[in-house]
Amino acid sequence: MASSVVTSPWTPVQDRAQVRIKARINKREAVLRTAAQVFNEKGYLASTLDEVAERLNVTKPTLYYYVKNKEEILFECVRIGLTMLQEAIHDVGASGGSAADKLTAAMRKYTEIVTMDFGMCVIRVGEDPLPAESQQKLRRIKAAIDLEFRELIAQGIAEGSLKPCDPKIAAFTIAGAISWVARWYQPNGDLSVDTIADQCIHFLSTGLYQPVTP
Amino acid sequence: MASSVVTSPWTPVQDRAQVRIKARINKREAVLRTAAQVFNEKGYLASTLDEVAERLNVTKPTLYYYVKNKEEILFECVRIGLTMLQEAIHDVGASGGSAADKLTAAMRKYTEIVTMDFGMCVIRVGEDPLPAESQQKLRRIKAAIDLEFRELIAQGIAEGSLKPCDPKIAAFTIAGAISWVARWYQPNGDLSVDTIADQCIHFLSTGLYQPVTP
Repeated sequence: MASSVVTSPWTPVQDRAQVRIKARINKREAVLRTAAQVFNEKGYLASTLDEVAERLNVTKPTLYYYVKNKEEILFECVRIGLTMLQEAIHDVGASGGSAADKLTAAMRKYTEIVTMDFGMCVIRVGEDPLPAESQQKLRRIKAAIDLEFRELIAQGIAEGSLKPCDPKIAAFTIAGAISWVARWYQPNGDLSVDTIADQCIHFLSTGLYQPVTP
Repeated sequence: MASSVVTSPWTPVQDRAQVRIKARINKREAVLRTAAQVFNEKGYLASTLDEVAERLNVTKPTLYYYVKNKEEILFECVRIGLTMLQEAIHDVGASGGSAADKLTAAMRKYTEIVTMDFGMCVIRVGEDPLPAESQQKLRRIKAAIDLEFRELIAQGIAEGSLKPCDPKIAAFTIAGAISWVARWYQPNGDLSVDTIADQCIHFLSTGLYQPVTP
């Protein structure tokens, strides 16, 4: 009888390392996300890492295995939120349809992201409490997002799907209207993110005023 | 010859008190306004009363004759800004015209105020760095402003000058779009407050998208 190959009941060394790395990434993500929730609820100044640790059922020293300090946490939360926004507007730009269609899709994604932990942290807390160098890094991402919005609007004006306007003011008006959602949205309130997105998009695209019949 | 009445070359005691009170109010206002400018430029955390004193050419102890501390200054700056916004929306409500006309006037005033020192401070800094009790006082004013906006929008829907919509989401969309101006407006930039107000009002009232011809 030929000897059969025994499958080792032990996880291969390489896989064990993978599992450890994944667990570490997950735990770091949980620390950042919980911190974002605390920042969003209480503001950055009033938030403590003690509370973050408590919500995760660990001691504060355990947090320091995953993050350096409160400033690094805020930097990462805002960076992740901004990266989500940037990817959203970028994906929309690469999709088909008119510039107006793309803008609608971008407004919807933007509304969704600013009602999530990291996206909300971009608006409710932002980069202001951070040192100048960190602020600059984050503001570069913001400027890139803003530029993509302006270019999309300029495209829409050129192709005729959007009305002639100043793309800079239009981009800021949209960003303001939707970013503000992060300030007033209540996760357990009576308005769903979908309803808010629908109405915001409707106002910004067709306006609040009844057309005056001549 | 009858003796003529001599006009005393000295300021009457009562008037002297008045002059002193007025000078004190002016100086306190200058301290608050300068502090608002520093907060708006650098953020609350990075701002120091040393810098406020320096810009006013006085020593820091002189400031304490007019204000208690940095927290009281921020509270007053935000309170004054919010009071300006509240008076604006209130005045507009008392004026004539359709609700849509009143909303246009309110949006214009709101844009003007958030590009001024105290109004800008409401948006750029706000009440978040303050103790809970102060936050509550300021949030009560915010809620009152928000209520006036919603009522004006509800009136407009009822009378037919505004499209049927959710007044809460509409009020927040307007507030967001215009408040955001405080974040990106540059006093020495190429866009005047008037141009920004015109375009914002245009977007919000008639929309960005070209109507689709059936």
